[in-house]
Amino acid sequence: MNMIFNESETIDDLQINNLKLIQKKDCFKFGIDSVLISDFADIKSGAKVIDLGTGSGIIPILLSAKTNASKITGVEIQSNLVEMATRSVKLNKLENIINIIEYDLKYLDVLYKNKEFDCIVTNPPYFKFGGGIINENNKKAISRHEIKCTLDDIIKVSSKLLKHNGTFSMVHRPDRLVDIMSTMRKHNIEPKKLRLVYSNINKQACLILISGNKYSRPELKVLPPLYVYNLDGSYSNEINKIYNRS
Amino acid sequence: MNMIFNESETIDDLQINNLKLIQKKDCFKFGIDSVLISDFADIKSGAKVIDLGTGSGIIPILLSAKTNASKITGVEIQSNLVEMATRSVKLNKLENIINIIEYDLKYLDVLYKNKEFDCIVTNPPYFKFGGGIINENNKKAISRHEIKCTLDDIIKVSSKLLKHNGTFSMVHRPDRLVDIMSTMRKHNIEPKKLRLVYSNINKQACLILISGNKYSRPELKVLPPLYVYNLDGSYSNEINKIYNRS
Repeated sequence: MNMIFNESETIDDLQINNLKLIQKKDCFKFGIDSVLISDFADIKSGAKVIDLGTGSGIIPILLSAKTNASKITGVEIQSNLVEMATRSVKLNKLENIINIIEYDLKYLDVLYKNKEFDCIVTNPPYFKFGGGIINENNKKAISRHEIKCTLDDIIKVSSKLLKHNGTFSMVHRPDRLVDIMSTMRKHNIEPKKLRLVYSNINKQACLILISGNKYSRPELKVLPPLYVYNLDGSYSNEINKIYNRS
Repeated sequence: MNMIFNESETIDDLQINNLKLIQKKDCFKFGIDSVLISDFADIKSGAKVIDLGTGSGIIPILLSAKTNASKITGVEIQSNLVEMATRSVKLNKLENIINIIEYDLKYLDVLYKNKEFDCIVTNPPYFKFGGGIINENNKKAISRHEIKCTLDDIIKVSSKLLKHNGTFSMVHRPDRLVDIMSTMRKHNIEPKKLRLVYSNINKQACLILISGNKYSRPELKVLPPLYVYNLDGSYSNEINKIYNRS
């Protein structure tokens, strides 16, 4: 039996700074969405960052390599994932930058009363509860469906945690864009940048990357599209660059 | 002096079905936005259509060629434009399909009480009043700035004119997308399709095409991007096709 990870887990190379990630074989594995939001999030040097619903800890670990954040907190409600993410942080010797905590994100404003965060990053559950096929494996369902928290819960608490003009960044699905924009504005986080992710130039968008700033004035920029694949099925240049393959 | 148009006007070939359009030399001329919304609007055969803020009548005239709408009404508040648009309709012998009326669109629900329209199309003023440089020529200003009507006015009255599940289609600017989506939802026109228009693949979006249906359930589709130019500055294939040049 390995000291760091067990038989129900895999250890994956993140292909950046020699970082590694422990993941459950039967659980929700990190995907391109976590990689893209870590790249999209605009995090200034010295920023204090929190990742809401961190799962395996993939986003804090990627952000530790891609930014000069001073402190990154990952919040997760599922204790087995908290324990595993903590082992990944130790494996990468990132304990001085990353802190993984077990907490229900809905009540984070009780824990952090001082609106102290510069940036919030999140890859939340995409599906409304009842709005998709619920996975039999409950742990996976909590990562995919709005069982423990809704979009409104996440954005509401984000507004309570952010500094004035602090940045909220999220990856989500295009079909929820109206909900997302309305809810951000409702909680005083004005959407400022939107980027649509398309599988290729002929397809409908498959993901959105959105960021907003607290108490900012309305004026959205829609950035150039991001294509995952070229028409021949190979990865686009931008994706190769984001994955450090260029 | 020409019978159909005078010295302050030009007559332009719309390059589709031999259609012509009379326009004022010193006034707001139709642009790519009117062409794109006429192509984007999904208008079924036999549909009853209304264009809010029709200006020169460009959208009804293009729709008469591109769709099998049974009746197209163009509404305009500026009497000189109403008179000119009416001449363009006669010039193209489209009086049996197109009706141009002089009316303040805010009160159209008084004129049409029966929620009788299948489709609403609009290329409204893009700029908030006070939010841009106001043109000295007031006629042009009314076409560009929210002087006579706001986004909320247009969407509110649209909801009153549309049949159940009727379609509202609009061209606008990306920086107003949050306002647009929030306002559509507020007035029970759920955004269903969004298409971003980009000058080329490296630029931020310059226009949005959006449609929604009255009392429809939330689920937005983001269609593939529309590029106006190739990187060498030539028009894209899709633009040539929309302009009937292919």
